[in-house]
Amino acid sequence: MIILGIDPGLTCTGWGVVAKSGSRLSHVANGQIRTNAKAAMAERLVELDAALTDVILHHRPDAGAVEEVFVNVNPQSTLKLGQARGVAMLSVARAGLQVAEYSTKLVKKAIVGTGGAEKAQVQAMLKVLLPGVKLAGEDAADALAVAITHANMLGSHR
Amino acid sequence: MIILGIDPGLTCTGWGVVAKSGSRLSHVANGQIRTNAKAAMAERLVELDAALTDVILHHRPDAGAVEEVFVNVNPQSTLKLGQARGVAMLSVARAGLQVAEYSTKLVKKAIVGTGGAEKAQVQAMLKVLLPGVKLAGEDAADALAVAITHANMLGSHR
Repeated sequence: MIILGIDPGLTCTGWGVVAKSGSRLSHVANGQIRTNAKAAMAERLVELDAALTDVILHHRPDAGAVEEVFVNVNPQSTLKLGQARGVAMLSVARAGLQVAEYSTKLVKKAIVGTGGAEKAQVQAMLKVLLPGVKLAGEDAADALAVAITHANMLGSHR
Repeated sequence: MIILGIDPGLTCTGWGVVAKSGSRLSHVANGQIRTNAKAAMAERLVELDAALTDVILHHRPDAGAVEEVFVNVNPQSTLKLGQARGVAMLSVARAGLQVAEYSTKLVKKAIVGTGGAEKAQVQAMLKVLLPGVKLAGEDAADALAVAITHANMLGSHR
């Protein structure tokens, strides 16, 4: 089973793909999608959709999960984040996949064991859980953590 | 020239299409898209995208404009609005159209002459500007107002 995790953002969206076979997890790929900050909003959303659709067509995931974004104090930032997140969810759902949602806290708990874990702890655990993984960046790391969380949840539902 | 205006929202998205020929404006169609409040977020976004894409395929607009949404005090509401707005902008841009953005205040000023106009005043002016128009609802009315605003702006740029 192939699982795609996404940490959405307008400036940078992280994505991570893991494979689950029985109780074994392995890393498939991870990356970050940056949109052109000088382009109009609609163009940036088209860029994000096109890049995520490429990832989906390339890796053919069976399930998708998106991180519940941090709701910023600044409403304009929250609106932008919402726009990117809406597009990310649409790209995954349009491919016929269910889209699970996990809070940052739950993801940290699933990976490190505590909801208050630091980013560095999450990244250290990713390297243990997915030996040999090279992280494309912080957002890609968060996306892989979401994918693993979803893989574990799917496992525990069986 | 056919112009599509959109007033995005997760629960209800208004759309309105007007035709401009020289300095003459006429009403083409307007409507509202409601998504299933019981469905998962990603499904609702897929519904919205599919319905807007139908409108675009049916009316073949040459230009699109989206209302700048009211940024709510509640961050969760702002995030949801952002998600719907992101999908609306994507649907229009993916069809190869430029997406203009207008604030509610600018739209009211363009239609009624004052940025502080009431909704009822805007709707009364719509009936003057587009004789015989039947409004599908408040959000559809707002969307037509956005379309007319964009039509006027396009005219003044020539």
